[in-house]
Amino acid sequence: MTSPPYEIVYYHGVPGRGEHIRLILEEAGVPYNDLGALGWEKCGEYVNAYLKGHGGNPPYFAMPMLKHGDLIINQTPNILLYLGSRLKLCGSAPDDLYRVNALALTALDGLSNEVHDCHHPIAIALYWEDQKEESMRRSKEFVKSRLPQHLDYWERALKSASEGSHGPNPGPWLMGDTFTYADLCLDGTTFAFPKALAQAKESGKYKLLFQHYDAVKARPKIASYLASDKRQKYDWGVYRYYPDNDVVAD
Amino acid sequence: MTSPPYEIVYYHGVPGRGEHIRLILEEAGVPYNDLGALGWEKCGEYVNAYLKGHGGNPPYFAMPMLKHGDLIINQTPNILLYLGSRLKLCGSAPDDLYRVNALALTALDGLSNEVHDCHHPIAIALYWEDQKEESMRRSKEFVKSRLPQHLDYWERALKSASEGSHGPNPGPWLMGDTFTYADLCLDGTTFAFPKALAQAKESGKYKLLFQHYDAVKARPKIASYLASDKRQKYDWGVYRYYPDNDVVAD
Repeated sequence: MTSPPYEIVYYHGVPGRGEHIRLILEEAGVPYNDLGALGWEKCGEYVNAYLKGHGGNPPYFAMPMLKHGDLIINQTPNILLYLGSRLKLCGSAPDDLYRVNALALTALDGLSNEVHDCHHPIAIALYWEDQKEESMRRSKEFVKSRLPQHLDYWERALKSASEGSHGPNPGPWLMGDTFTYADLCLDGTTFAFPKALAQAKESGKYKLLFQHYDAVKARPKIASYLASDKRQKYDWGVYRYYPDNDVVAD
Repeated sequence: MTSPPYEIVYYHGVPGRGEHIRLILEEAGVPYNDLGALGWEKCGEYVNAYLKGHGGNPPYFAMPMLKHGDLIINQTPNILLYLGSRLKLCGSAPDDLYRVNALALTALDGLSNEVHDCHHPIAIALYWEDQKEESMRRSKEFVKSRLPQHLDYWERALKSASEGSHGPNPGPWLMGDTFTYADLCLDGTTFAFPKALAQAKESGKYKLLFQHYDAVKARPKIASYLASDKRQKYDWGVYRYYPDNDVVAD
């Protein structure tokens, strides 16, 4: 029995939250359809039907969505959980799925949602220009107090993994020697805050984290994907670059 | 073989995100230990050990955490997923777990995280008084544009469920006639925005949603818990009441 195709339902022309989903499918080496590639009009028909509830699935609030056979689901961490479980990228010990999901949710909270909210702290319905003062203030606070907390945390998690104090064997990944989809969730912040991340790298405090980041990008299937024209550029979406927000800690 | 006890690791004296976890355990009627009840000092020893990584589990970023036997996990939606799966509160059809997780994540995003961010739009490290102007502006925008989107969505989801167009049978719950832990995730917004929610109720546009809310509170085990002295009052934490934020849509 052939597995039905995996279909990503997301906007056309932006990596956004869909990128986390593309990365896990690329790492697993399974083919998938990216409905966003159909263009807005044609993709929009699927989007509208799926968001309304379709074929025994509840209505959903927002994209990204994943269709696999009769199942349609949304919510990025939920889609990663489903794929991680099917594609054997969620650890090796019993209940590791829940440890990996915990790590992935924390990465998506701190390095995706919090970064997004730096450019839209008041309302996502308003343009950045209409919340620019608040956005600059939030970005400054994020870089000063919150970003270091997140970087410290991931450095500690990788140190613990490298010492074998969690997971069955020591290794360079978040679950030790077993690569999981949580390892794919740490991208994007560099695009939004290049100065702060450059400062963090130069500080030498996050060696394992920056090594990890390079090691993920060097995995053969990920490297091949990143070099291909399937990889879209960060531009608008979750991760955006505004020079006014690109500050360093004092 | 007896199951080890479920242990919630969270702050003392605040319902906060721990409340979603208490509600599912109460609904399932299983005993649990609430380590926050030990008081800050004694609970703090467990918190520190578990956050650092303990007994084969990775370090975690923040509470709430759940300990069950050797497994320690964090992240509210992840803990609900684990408990929902074990306690049979995640639907009846194959893969319903992922549909329920999608709904729960959306509820926690829109009615918990976004509500939280109304009182802390700039930084969680700053007092409300130090981001009061931004908090009032965000609250106003939330009540005007975002809250109606969320309420509309849940009303649509419940309408779809009541018509049997998803899930095997029609019914009053988010998955039709099968009560799931997603039904327990819609609490708290009323405490933060009583005026806006009163206005929404009076509008008559969200009848199924307010019926659903009452129906959840009337379930025997939930009603008994809510009337007990185990139920803590909302005061500070995720859901806070600031009169200056308590606005209605124009």
